[in-house]
Amino acid sequence: MSLIQALNWRYATKKMNGNAVPQDKVDQIIEAAHLAPTSSGLQPFKVIVITNPELKAKIAELAYGQQQIIDCSHLLVFAAWDQYTEENIRAVFAHANAERGLPATATADYENTLITTLTSKTAEENYHHAAKQSYISFAMAIAEAALLEVDATPMEGFDAGKLDELLDLKALNLRSTTMLTLGYRDENGDWLVNLKKVRSPLTDFVVAY
Amino acid sequence: MSLIQALNWRYATKKMNGNAVPQDKVDQIIEAAHLAPTSSGLQPFKVIVITNPELKAKIAELAYGQQQIIDCSHLLVFAAWDQYTEENIRAVFAHANAERGLPATATADYENTLITTLTSKTAEENYHHAAKQSYISFAMAIAEAALLEVDATPMEGFDAGKLDELLDLKALNLRSTTMLTLGYRDENGDWLVNLKKVRSPLTDFVVAY
Repeated sequence: MSLIQALNWRYATKKMNGNAVPQDKVDQIIEAAHLAPTSSGLQPFKVIVITNPELKAKIAELAYGQQQIIDCSHLLVFAAWDQYTEENIRAVFAHANAERGLPATATADYENTLITTLTSKTAEENYHHAAKQSYISFAMAIAEAALLEVDATPMEGFDAGKLDELLDLKALNLRSTTMLTLGYRDENGDWLVNLKKVRSPLTDFVVAY
Repeated sequence: MSLIQALNWRYATKKMNGNAVPQDKVDQIIEAAHLAPTSSGLQPFKVIVITNPELKAKIAELAYGQQQIIDCSHLLVFAAWDQYTEENIRAVFAHANAERGLPATATADYENTLITTLTSKTAEENYHHAAKQSYISFAMAIAEAALLEVDATPMEGFDAGKLDELLDLKALNLRSTTMLTLGYRDENGDWLVNLKKVRSPLTDFVVAY
């Protein structure tokens, strides 16, 4: 299946049937998310994988009771760094330089400029920037799930502050951005499954210069 | 090629060779971007496709002179709605309901709630939300380009305010979020092409609950 076929196949599943996604498929979805490009390679986010039924039930309560959270086998929570700091930026480059067999100072000038630029902004601006990077990763997970014919529901409709508290994300210097349920559609129970996929007219979407 | 293979193949191309990407591949990349899921299906962004060499040269000046902008054949600029309004939200649902053969009022309650929620926020909060949706589309374009073995450089490093002026995006109620150059790598001229792809250790990236 091509990506375009997969994106036409997928939809924001509203009712899942409770069947579990095999671990090797979950691993591939996470691998795609992990390979997503990000600004300066910072990857300023993590993916939290939740399978515990009690925890999923508590999360559903913070998300307007959306049943997919209960019926999915794996709930991915994307969570972005709450702030850029000299420490978390330097750690990324130290790791990259070590992996590439380069001296620790190989990227010093670039790092210094980046640290000056990012740490001069407010924590809220930093969070928005980091959150945007997490959306690239979120999208890669959505794409890979569709290619594997795993149903996934992208979600923003939850109380992020309460979710952060529940998962103690502050201790990890993270703030939740999005969630993705992984599971399988319940074709008979889902009101959305047979509705036509609609996108804006392509002529409105694209502007040519 | 699988998506994971494609994401390993791709890299943020720093030097392109000037060869043009065939139109059918550009069309597929835009189609993937167009199929990206977004919050409530709003698709609050457009993609601006730039091939004009003079315009690309002007844009390169607003982007630290990055040569890929000159050497790519197509430059995609993703631009998000600068604000949510009752009008732009209602138009999305009117189109979707018409496409689905549903009465115009089919989604009235949902629309009303969404309008109340989104228009009660500041224009800046609206923009950040819309911009995040554009990153999902941006990622789908990156993924599709890689699957087609088209090189692409995701870019945030440009003066968005000046680009918005140059492209007169305010007249379209848009603000630029990201750019993506499409072209082909110059293997001999690109310092990055042979450096190992590095991502954070998977054990740091994933948190299991």
